[in-house]
Amino acid sequence: MTTQHDAVTPTTWYNILPDLPEPVPPMLHPGTKEPVTADDLAPLFPAELVAQELGGPREVDIPGPVLDLYRRFRPAPLVRAERLERALRTPARIYYKYEGGNPTGSHKLNTALAQAHYNKAAGVTALVTETGAGQWGSALGLACSFLELDCEVFMVRVSYDQKPYRRALMETYGAAVHASPSELTAAGRAALAADPAAPGSLGLAISEAVEAVAAAGGRAKYALGSVLNHVLLHQTVIGQEVLAQFARIGDYPDVVIGAAGGGSNFGGLAFPFLGEQLAGRRAVRAVAVEPASCPSLTAGRYDYDFGDSAGTTPLMKMHTLGHGFTPPAIHAGGLRYHGMSPIVSHLKELGLVEAVAVPQTACFEAGVAFARAEGVVPAPESTHAVRAAIDEALACRESGESKAIVFALSGHGHFDMQAYLDHFAGRLAD
Amino acid sequence: MTTQHDAVTPTTWYNILPDLPEPVPPMLHPGTKEPVTADDLAPLFPAELVAQELGGPREVDIPGPVLDLYRRFRPAPLVRAERLERALRTPARIYYKYEGGNPTGSHKLNTALAQAHYNKAAGVTALVTETGAGQWGSALGLACSFLELDCEVFMVRVSYDQKPYRRALMETYGAAVHASPSELTAAGRAALAADPAAPGSLGLAISEAVEAVAAAGGRAKYALGSVLNHVLLHQTVIGQEVLAQFARIGDYPDVVIGAAGGGSNFGGLAFPFLGEQLAGRRAVRAVAVEPASCPSLTAGRYDYDFGDSAGTTPLMKMHTLGHGFTPPAIHAGGLRYHGMSPIVSHLKELGLVEAVAVPQTACFEAGVAFARAEGVVPAPESTHAVRAAIDEALACRESGESKAIVFALSGHGHFDMQAYLDHFAGRLAD
Repeated sequence: MTTQHDAVTPTTWYNILPDLPEPVPPMLHPGTKEPVTADDLAPLFPAELVAQELGGPREVDIPGPVLDLYRRFRPAPLVRAERLERALRTPARIYYKYEGGNPTGSHKLNTALAQAHYNKAAGVTALVTETGAGQWGSALGLACSFLELDCEVFMVRVSYDQKPYRRALMETYGAAVHASPSELTAAGRAALAADPAAPGSLGLAISEAVEAVAAAGGRAKYALGSVLNHVLLHQTVIGQEVLAQFARIGDYPDVVIGAAGGGSNFGGLAFPFLGEQLAGRRAVRAVAVEPASCPSLTAGRYDYDFGDSAGTTPLMKMHTLGHGFTPPAIHAGGLRYHGMSPIVSHLKELGLVEAVAVPQTACFEAGVAFARAEGVVPAPESTHAVRAAIDEALACRESGESKAIVFALSGHGHFDMQAYLDHFAGRLAD
Repeated sequence: MTTQHDAVTPTTWYNILPDLPEPVPPMLHPGTKEPVTADDLAPLFPAELVAQELGGPREVDIPGPVLDLYRRFRPAPLVRAERLERALRTPARIYYKYEGGNPTGSHKLNTALAQAHYNKAAGVTALVTETGAGQWGSALGLACSFLELDCEVFMVRVSYDQKPYRRALMETYGAAVHASPSELTAAGRAALAADPAAPGSLGLAISEAVEAVAAAGGRAKYALGSVLNHVLLHQTVIGQEVLAQFARIGDYPDVVIGAAGGGSNFGGLAFPFLGEQLAGRRAVRAVAVEPASCPSLTAGRYDYDFGDSAGTTPLMKMHTLGHGFTPPAIHAGGLRYHGMSPIVSHLKELGLVEAVAVPQTACFEAGVAFARAEGVVPAPESTHAVRAAIDEALACRESGESKAIVFALSGHGHFDMQAYLDHFAGRLAD
């Protein structure tokens, strides 16, 4: 119970799949190259999540226990960035949806709670996952603590080294954390044999987590923090709240902006607005922002590829830099992924989603400007959306247009201050 | 503007001074030993804050611009800790008031915004302060960024070393941060001459800040994060919100608990409840919790003493360990202060406030239990209140009483994860 609860948190998630003008190409079995079946996915996920992954109705009921957990932290505030507007001398109306107010400090908790719930209900006793920056791992760690599940996390080594306090947070919640590549799996050992100083990647950490689940023999399942349909589904709680919040204040965005690594932050905010557009009600520009150093949507090919680096997952039709791609060690660890959500990729191909790539230093400049104007220090991932929103607002200053811009402030940067120190010291490369 | 605003944030601060059965002994001039006058304090503080320090009415209007800034982040949630209650198998009703949801992650922003506002209105262009754990320094840093004031912070060296990311946060807001003792002041140089590895103390950092203000020749004023009457006044926004929140849910606390270093967190929560008691309406137990290693209220003498270690501030009648006392380098840097708010000290003498001292390891055990049950990882300071609240709840389990307990969760521990790592590694001493 919190006194801040009000009625804007939805009771259903929004599934965009039935509204798409053309269906998303299906996930393929890596051996047969046939569309995957529920049975194929059963070793990894409980039946309810498999069903969400493969389709389902436009509106999916949020289970009561999940809604109760959501309401401990939600609704997340939609804030008019009036001080930033003044600092930019822009006629644009800038809004941000702040998902960093919950105990793990990012939007990842929205799907972590849902996934932990469905696994617990299915009798699973442990979840295994990967994490990049640590936002996802700590969210799943807390969700597992709430649901009384064991939690094991393979953390990309570059983040493990850069962010020991993210690991400490996961351990505080009771999770076991391993640097990836690790000696615990064949995929990890192979990577270490090739390069003992390998910085790791989300793709490799996924391989290790999937392998560990297979080795656990049914007791454990796998949990993924982005990319998949069911993950993006859970994140639509964000965009639906924003829709309701805009209705309350009598405004509506012209542009919706989110940083995109695997796509769940962006999709969570944008899909409910795209749903409005697909239903013929109100049009919107939806802009996905990615790092220039890991530009799957803007420079990757649109093709079937593996979700992990070892090539053990089902094949997904997506924008990809190739599953062997190891992104540079930028600070936005959550955006260091070779692929992109199949739904977001499909929407990009359909012309319903725009994509831009921005360099790291310009993002941190935007992050500092935002912090001084609005108070919240953005996570490195979130600075990508801040950068794009500021650029849109500056374009409005040039054109004189008063557009409404909303962006996803997906998390705070309290665990990422080394990145800001590096930025101030001029140590960041683009 | 945030969509989370509702009507529980008060428009006035509550000044407990007129309600006290006996007046608080006045602050004395260090030279004349006479009660200080407004003129004595004018070099340090603007006139409005001096007036608040020396007395004033029961209700003090919150200036509109401060209220607007408050409403960016307030009301802070009052949360029923139902999961913690179940974990403890206690019949007690446990509530916590969470002040960590704002961008600097603690209650300190409540007075930082007020102090920056009054200084700005008086034409001051820079504020100088000290900080222990960094909560206060980062709050003042943000407030100065909002009000467009320069900000200079003397940070106790042990915290400066333990918490580089708190420093990074202050710098992100544009503040200049110095480790204290520093070479910038006579007080700092004397301390370094006596011990080049001096860990510093809040008392010494105050000396340095006050000296730096004097050297700035009127352009700069001093800001203090606790202890003083006007600081505690501003923090009563906390307890007044909690009163309104309890009225909404139809409950009322038997026990009010807060960690106490200088006393502003504890006083901010407790004073409005003590006001209810002093007005003859409802009684409450008010419990101040301090570290066993820095036990001013439970083991200090009640006497006039300096607020700083160099002996340059006015004399205050308070519970003190002596202004020469350097507390051990516990992780709760915000509680490492030799003295205690004169009002809180006076209330203790009057029997209106209880005090307990708790050892560091027991606090971190409580902090971990709280994090796993409720999600929020408490700041080391806040774990002291968590410990005392858990002990009250366990006593209820023994006695079978269903008391209502409310405690101040004054901040999150995202900048304090090294302390948790040290706790897990068994490296903490009591």
